[in-house]
Amino acid sequence: MAAKTKIRVVAALGGNAILQLGQKGTYEEQLANIKKTAEHLANMIMSRKYQVIITHGNGPQVGAILLQNDAGQAAFNVPAMPMDVCGAESQGLIGYMIQQSLREIFVEGGRPEIPVATVVTQVIVDKNDSAFKNPTKPVGPFYTEEVAKKLAKEKGWTVISDAGRGWRRVVPSPDPKDIAEKEAIKAMIDAHVVPIVSGGGGIPVVEENGKLRGVEAVIDKDLAGERVAEAIDADVLLILTDVNGAAINYKKPDEKWLRKITVAEAKKYLQEGQFAKGSMGPKVLAAIRFIEWGGKRAIITSLDKAYDAIRGKTGTEIVKE
Amino acid sequence: MAAKTKIRVVAALGGNAILQLGQKGTYEEQLANIKKTAEHLANMIMSRKYQVIITHGNGPQVGAILLQNDAGQAAFNVPAMPMDVCGAESQGLIGYMIQQSLREIFVEGGRPEIPVATVVTQVIVDKNDSAFKNPTKPVGPFYTEEVAKKLAKEKGWTVISDAGRGWRRVVPSPDPKDIAEKEAIKAMIDAHVVPIVSGGGGIPVVEENGKLRGVEAVIDKDLAGERVAEAIDADVLLILTDVNGAAINYKKPDEKWLRKITVAEAKKYLQEGQFAKGSMGPKVLAAIRFIEWGGKRAIITSLDKAYDAIRGKTGTEIVKE
Repeated sequence: MAAKTKIRVVAALGGNAILQLGQKGTYEEQLANIKKTAEHLANMIMSRKYQVIITHGNGPQVGAILLQNDAGQAAFNVPAMPMDVCGAESQGLIGYMIQQSLREIFVEGGRPEIPVATVVTQVIVDKNDSAFKNPTKPVGPFYTEEVAKKLAKEKGWTVISDAGRGWRRVVPSPDPKDIAEKEAIKAMIDAHVVPIVSGGGGIPVVEENGKLRGVEAVIDKDLAGERVAEAIDADVLLILTDVNGAAINYKKPDEKWLRKITVAEAKKYLQEGQFAKGSMGPKVLAAIRFIEWGGKRAIITSLDKAYDAIRGKTGTEIVKE
Repeated sequence: MAAKTKIRVVAALGGNAILQLGQKGTYEEQLANIKKTAEHLANMIMSRKYQVIITHGNGPQVGAILLQNDAGQAAFNVPAMPMDVCGAESQGLIGYMIQQSLREIFVEGGRPEIPVATVVTQVIVDKNDSAFKNPTKPVGPFYTEEVAKKLAKEKGWTVISDAGRGWRRVVPSPDPKDIAEKEAIKAMIDAHVVPIVSGGGGIPVVEENGKLRGVEAVIDKDLAGERVAEAIDADVLLILTDVNGAAINYKKPDEKWLRKITVAEAKKYLQEGQFAKGSMGPKVLAAIRFIEWGGKRAIITSLDKAYDAIRGKTGTEIVKE
């Protein structure tokens, strides 16, 4: 890659950047949320100091696509696509809306020349990852027990009963190892393009003799974002969510928000179970990995505090020691 | 852009590169077709002589997504996305499969290092394009007259009766003007990435005070591919379809396949109605535009003859004079 002229920041957007809890998921809602998201990121992106690489979640969107695939098969006999393909579709869907919204902000900010582009991204996982033996991540619609067990038999799915709400498919959540499209992403960074990559944690693929094959799984988007940060030699991993940082004793009387913690402290808290699995847990783990890999700064904060946090004013920062 | 070291070729893949007539559109069928397509392109891409930029159609795929959106709304109340968003989804879907298939060929060919990546691409059309007043392109499912007219009223659609097969929505097919993500695409080319761009003719957007807004329309993929070729300063526009070239008096006793025709001849034949609208017509028009813009070679041939055609052995070539 070309020599760095700016501080390179991977910004990992949480689900709230695209859809708010309780919303239906219309196009208008999503575009309005993404426009706000773009505003929150704008100062940082338009500054001459930072170069921003964006990644994002896709839970509600890929959930909707899975439902649409189910319904399309039933109503019109349209062949349902496997999950990895649905994930690729969600990258197109979300990437397009982010591209358009960022351009709007850049035009308003007098910087229409800043290019933005989404790269359809495959993320490589280990085919021997133990997650494949123990699928835990619920995806798609709820079914009756009868239908769920029929689908499990027909399609080889693992299904579980989900706390009285019905039966659901679960898929593995393997650990991301590498980014298949990293050379393309590096090229875009060198050319000062704002790349949107690894949406929804990336399309999960396994490598067999150098070839890639899609698998039905979900990769945590913050852990995948951390691999992006490694691949492009980022300085900062900025994990943006709906809370202002990480806390210990969360929602208990002795709750304590963390401003700065060392990797050793973060590991200890993680082991104690202080951070929720599938939520703050992987964010803290991603931050730890990034610093241990050699990253300069790893910050967890809320989307609307992104620019304050990167200037050290708020959020939780995980430091080496 | 960096100085050219190779002959730069935009290869526009026809629908048959992804799905054959009569197939159902399963993932397995599409992936098998795309793997064959990748083989047909392989010699050219792996040569040290040509640099290939890929674009492709999305008719059956976006059609399936539209059906899935309809069915998902009806069955699960999942908000249907507008057509431009469905187009973005189809770019993810198809781009992912092409990326994976090309890598497979490169690995087999001992060239695993060649990077491939899909860019979610918006194509700018003129908001005053007369096509917006006269929608002609049928999309999505067939409806009864009653349902079609109800939808037309509710959603502001234009619907038409389609030759006894039922009623269908029609959308405008405006002329492509520019490629929103051209800087990102150029950066990838400079870095020797094989980019997959402008899928399905691109996501149609109009420009208003520099900002982009999605519109419900379909852009012809060969005409959009020609704009890609202009934007990246291509040498060759290679339009790949299911026939070996263009013919006059097509399927008549005096049918004549064309090997080499001038822009003037092509224009005359086009005006005579020798080339089918929405099929060979826009391919010839794209070829004419490319040569008139200053492109070196414009070739129409079948997918399996791609490498022969670029070496001058077959197909129809449109030349300046």
